[in-house]
Amino acid sequence: MKTARVFRLSMAHPGDLSELENLITSGTVAASDVVAIIGKTEGNGGVNDFTRGYFTQTLMALLSKHLNKPAAQLIHEIPCVLSGGTEGVMSPHYSVFCIGEADASTRQYPSALAIGTAFSAPVAAEDVGRRAHVESVTAAVREAIANAGIEKLDDVHFVQVKCPCVTVARAAAAIAAGKTPLTNDPNKSMAFARAAGAFGVALALGEIKPGDFKESSLLSDFTIQSPRASISSGVEVESNEVIVLGNSPAWAGPLRISHRQMSDALDICGIVDVLADLDIPARPQVTAADADRIACVLVKCEPDRRGKIRSNRHTMLDDTDINAQRHIRGAVAGLVAGVVGDGRIFVSGGAEHQGPDGGGLIAVIASQARGNA
Amino acid sequence: MKTARVFRLSMAHPGDLSELENLITSGTVAASDVVAIIGKTEGNGGVNDFTRGYFTQTLMALLSKHLNKPAAQLIHEIPCVLSGGTEGVMSPHYSVFCIGEADASTRQYPSALAIGTAFSAPVAAEDVGRRAHVESVTAAVREAIANAGIEKLDDVHFVQVKCPCVTVARAAAAIAAGKTPLTNDPNKSMAFARAAGAFGVALALGEIKPGDFKESSLLSDFTIQSPRASISSGVEVESNEVIVLGNSPAWAGPLRISHRQMSDALDICGIVDVLADLDIPARPQVTAADADRIACVLVKCEPDRRGKIRSNRHTMLDDTDINAQRHIRGAVAGLVAGVVGDGRIFVSGGAEHQGPDGGGLIAVIASQARGNA
Amino acid sequence: MKTARVFRLSMAHPGDLSELENLITSGTVAASDVVAIIGKTEGNGGVNDFTRGYFTQTLMALLSKHLNKPAAQLIHEIPCVLSGGTEGVMSPHYSVFCIGEADASTRQYPSALAIGTAFSAPVAAEDVGRRAHVESVTAAVREAIANAGIEKLDDVHFVQVKCPCVTVARAAAAIAAGKTPLTNDPNKSMAFARAAGAFGVALALGEIKPGDFKESSLLSDFTIQSPRASISSGVEVESNEVIVLGNSPAWAGPLRISHRQMSDALDICGIVDVLADLDIPARPQVTAADADRIACVLVKCEPDRRGKIRSNRHTMLDDTDINAQRHIRGAVAGLVAGVVGDGRIFVSGGAEHQGPDGGGLIAVIASQARGNA
Amino acid sequence: MKTARVFRLSMAHPGDLSELENLITSGTVAASDVVAIIGKTEGNGGVNDFTRGYFTQTLMALLSKHLNKPAAQLIHEIPCVLSGGTEGVMSPHYSVFCIGEADASTRQYPSALAIGTAFSAPVAAEDVGRRAHVESVTAAVREAIANAGIEKLDDVHFVQVKCPCVTVARAAAAIAAGKTPLTNDPNKSMAFARAAGAFGVALALGEIKPGDFKESSLLSDFTIQSPRASISSGVEVESNEVIVLGNSPAWAGPLRISHRQMSDALDICGIVDVLADLDIPARPQVTAADADRIACVLVKCEPDRRGKIRSNRHTMLDDTDINAQRHIRGAVAGLVAGVVGDGRIFVSGGAEHQGPDGGGLIAVIASQARGNA
Repeated sequence: MKTARVFRLSMAHPGDLSELENLITSGTVAASDVVAIIGKTEGNGGVNDFTRGYFTQTLMALLSKHLNKPAAQLIHEIPCVLSGGTEGVMSPHYSVFCIGEADASTRQYPSALAIGTAFSAPVAAEDVGRRAHVESVTAAVREAIANAGIEKLDDVHFVQVKCPCVTVARAAAAIAAGKTPLTNDPNKSMAFARAAGAFGVALALGEIKPGDFKESSLLSDFTIQSPRASISSGVEVESNEVIVLGNSPAWAGPLRISHRQMSDALDICGIVDVLADLDIPARPQVTAADADRIACVLVKCEPDRRGKIRSNRHTMLDDTDINAQRHIRGAVAGLVAGVVGDGRIFVSGGAEHQGPDGGGLIAVIASQARGNA
Repeated sequence: MKTARVFRLSMAHPGDLSELENLITSGTVAASDVVAIIGKTEGNGGVNDFTRGYFTQTLMALLSKHLNKPAAQLIHEIPCVLSGGTEGVMSPHYSVFCIGEADASTRQYPSALAIGTAFSAPVAAEDVGRRAHVESVTAAVREAIANAGIEKLDDVHFVQVKCPCVTVARAAAAIAAGKTPLTNDPNKSMAFARAAGAFGVALALGEIKPGDFKESSLLSDFTIQSPRASISSGVEVESNEVIVLGNSPAWAGPLRISHRQMSDALDICGIVDVLADLDIPARPQVTAADADRIACVLVKCEPDRRGKIRSNRHTMLDDTDINAQRHIRGAVAGLVAGVVGDGRIFVSGGAEHQGPDGGGLIAVIASQARGNA
Repeated sequence: MKTARVFRLSMAHPGDLSELENLITSGTVAASDVVAIIGKTEGNGGVNDFTRGYFTQTLMALLSKHLNKPAAQLIHEIPCVLSGGTEGVMSPHYSVFCIGEADASTRQYPSALAIGTAFSAPVAAEDVGRRAHVESVTAAVREAIANAGIEKLDDVHFVQVKCPCVTVARAAAAIAAGKTPLTNDPNKSMAFARAAGAFGVALALGEIKPGDFKESSLLSDFTIQSPRASISSGVEVESNEVIVLGNSPAWAGPLRISHRQMSDALDICGIVDVLADLDIPARPQVTAADADRIACVLVKCEPDRRGKIRSNRHTMLDDTDINAQRHIRGAVAGLVAGVVGDGRIFVSGGAEHQGPDGGGLIAVIASQARGNA
Repeated sequence: MKTARVFRLSMAHPGDLSELENLITSGTVAASDVVAIIGKTEGNGGVNDFTRGYFTQTLMALLSKHLNKPAAQLIHEIPCVLSGGTEGVMSPHYSVFCIGEADASTRQYPSALAIGTAFSAPVAAEDVGRRAHVESVTAAVREAIANAGIEKLDDVHFVQVKCPCVTVARAAAAIAAGKTPLTNDPNKSMAFARAAGAFGVALALGEIKPGDFKESSLLSDFTIQSPRASISSGVEVESNEVIVLGNSPAWAGPLRISHRQMSDALDICGIVDVLADLDIPARPQVTAADADRIACVLVKCEPDRRGKIRSNRHTMLDDTDINAQRHIRGAVAGLVAGVVGDGRIFVSGGAEHQGPDGGGLIAVIASQARGNA
């Protein structure tokens, strides 16, 4: 039966894949085991963040060398989801998701981490942030769930989607071709793309139905949320790339995933609760021994668009110097890293419709405690 | 006997003192009770942060109107210590420290919050960050301790000093006058000024002796620390402004202060411990009822200059887009605000020599629990 | 007959009005002569730029002291138009526009600089950027033209309007009151407010008629332009503040104004031409003697929203680190300052509908050459 | 005899070398002709600007494919000097310097553009910005001049050096190894590295002698300048990479180079003069026909460290939001681009010792006018 492994690796700069290369060279990982990457690079996380493209180019060149497949092909087979911006205490790192075979007789736990991936067709510039985009995401998420072999939608805990957006150049090209992009403001486009991704995940997970929303609901009706969606958007992709993470009795291995909603940017309870789900106490910090059991921490967050957090004014949305997403990532990462005692966490902004306004979600993958066997 | 009151007030912008005006107009506070202000304004916290000057001008005009004293005089009588930068979840606010008289017969607790203030003479541009600056701070801190009526140095928990620094213009003027400023880089000057402040506090509190350091120890020998010093630096002051906060049996009232070191930027234990000192549990978050007892949270922090936090690389010091102090303030504020459930916290960067490298300190003022009476 | 004087003064920081104070104290200027201020302060020029409020508060306190009128009244009588952002070679400064009386018998030139000002009623948050906003501007501009005594609309060369915008807080308040602001994104609101200002000026100058545009034309139909409008927007004003500058035979004095369109950000010809209009050659730089004749340089500019300048891609609109308006101000100021040899120039971004896309306008006030008398 | 060609190519993003690929694929350029690259990428130009590494990786992979040499070898053979930061009107682009053979009988001009390159050995972290670094640069520049076949030092017009600097990580590693880097502040290190480069060029060109300076003269004695040095510094190189450009009778072809000092950031005369040297008038802008003759524009500039430009205060050095180098690049590029009518110009900050304080240099390569033959 299948078994998932997750390696959390550090990088010295966005083009540094030496830790993965070492794992491959030493035989710990076969290049063909690698099915997905989720990472944080030290860019600004905005339209002009090229650290993601740099990392991806380097990764694909590395895998290409070991797999004897062209990088241009791999880029459409292995989702590489990077979130730029390691504000504050975050440490640049990437998690490598691998699938291997395990002997069913050795399984220790009734269910284990399951992984599935999928790619949609390219999304046209004029479709970004529109219903066609939503539907494109939904189809890809369903394919990834099937690919993971997860039968119950409740067993899905985290759906990462990387959506394309428009740049000024792409918008201009579309306009020149007689098309009408939703916006030619790249930051706005990224927001609409993330909304489309969240709606697409919600549809795929049965949390909403096609008739529950209109195109205009995107970025306006924030009661529509998917508490398991984690959407990024960036200039470097043209199709939706999907990674589904859940638990399944069809998979073996010690890893398990859980998720919780974060109700706002101060919701330390959500963090402590998701750790408790995995039998990891935080009083107030996870012990070093338990921290070693944690394989991956995935967080989405968002500056509250009402301008206040628990009735106190925040200044993130009115700041012309620092982008609001950089503000919120730095703050929430400070909180999560303080609880888990480790800065190698994936905290991504832009959580529109991926939890309550001003909040988001946290998912953690950890080895199951021995006593659970 | 004397009693201290602390009002934590919000502002809509750096020139908005309406909440204090309301307190004065309504008679809750007499303008003459106000002895010090500590606040966070929404600037960048750097040399070109004019939100501090704007707030100060507005404050002094307000008090001038009510006290019938010129603003130009008040500015040398009432320390107004502002830290720019409300990154992430921080909310712009200011704490007004007031001293009143209480009938000794009504006292509830054996000791209570005590406040003392002092101003040094102006510091010349060429002295900033040098031994003369250190000594100037020491003398002012001693004066403020005496002024607070605190007899035991152990009862001092927090010494806030606002130190002058050089700007490019001030440095140029000094050079034109034949003087040699330590640096003409304003950000560097602010760092040296903060170091001088910390050394000055350490001397005043007896933590170090004059022979324990050389001028070159500033910003180089980080074993020299004062765990109770909180130093700011800014272009808007020319002399050292000192606020001493401690507990004293000579004071009445429900308030009490405690402090703890933060060993690094992930040290949630230091936060939980200082709250426990004041009988405020955080499991994991302070309850709303206990949060109401908290009058003021004061934090200093610093990006670890070794480039790592608990062996993982951070990117704060190499970032040309966002100043390192803005990074660390946002991260540490995210952690502290998550524990106390409130973004109205004073988190100030630039903690050189004010705790271990990469760490800092946290002090909390809270009403004593009823059972303590 | 009336005569206009313009003093271009430097400041050490946004609260430094000492040069104006010196002029008043020395008797060069009577406080009652001051009718308007246009200046550049060293903020970021965005929603959270409080240098403008700081300067304004200081200015009004100064004038209040000398005029014995409350600052709160003066702020509705004397337009103080500040543009934040002294990127690159720009030097923080402010131009003080004064009106005095001249003996008609001494006049040297057939016409001279004329100044008029006006204030509209406050603009509601939900009206910002809408037709009601346009009409409010138009009425105020007409009042200012009348106020200047300019009879021919062709003699109007520069109409400065400072328009209110929404902040996150104002938008939230309006929504809570059941109103629908055009946007709750403050930067977007500032852009719509500038568009409304430009349409209002175009209407007042007869460049367009009310039926020539729809509300949706704002920020979408860029063929609608007023080549004499200079619009700023900021959080610190609630009504439209208007300053009209032109030439009039009813005014005496040596000063004269001219303006030219800048067709794009590289249009050095527009700069040289407007100087030539005033008999000031630039080959390639204005001589020091001629530079002394220049009293004020006023420029509006805008990053080309098509993403290219003369077929080469620019990166201003895709930059998450530096706001696009800061980029363009720095570049255009570099060009204008290089021609005039002086960094004390007013270069303001946000030139939507105030010239061609990617371009803007330049107006210069200078003393007329002796030979012209 | 040898002939130089220069191709100025645009890029859609830092990993886009498609225009060069097209030239190679179409046979216009042989990969083996390429001897150097100088370009502007759209990063921040600071320590954490990874657009340079991304471009370089892409370039070397492209050349590797066509030359059948490993990229790791090419990187030590072909200097790739990139300056991050396309502030304002600058357009991301790169100039490809190629050397070919020309039949001596067809030569049109008595001398023509000559190119030489060289690489030094790696510079240790503790040597960066010290005399050893200076000497390493000098040796490499001499090698490049010889390599170009330029016999008279007066014929050298532009010496580009890319110097290594320390990052926080490199500095920490050096310290751990018992070494003492000059600074562990990466931005400071970049400045010292640029100073060492300028001193090295001045020595190589005979402008100064070894006894003319002390190690402490770097970044302190600004009377020491090389008006032909253009130094960059970045994290992505470990040795000094040198490109020498000059004119030589030993070379054929239409191209010619000239250079001028820029005395300050407003020195439009320097720009017009260097164009005049090449028979290109700018009245005030270069005509489209003449603009086509321009192959490359190379500029160095620097914010005046005395805080003023022609007696007016600038704010570049006191800005915590935008790095001073980004400010000055945007301003000077605005001026130069306005004169040449083209944003594809190389404007690089950090001109310490590469011209007068606050100024810099400009070099232009252009085809010689027909009449010159």
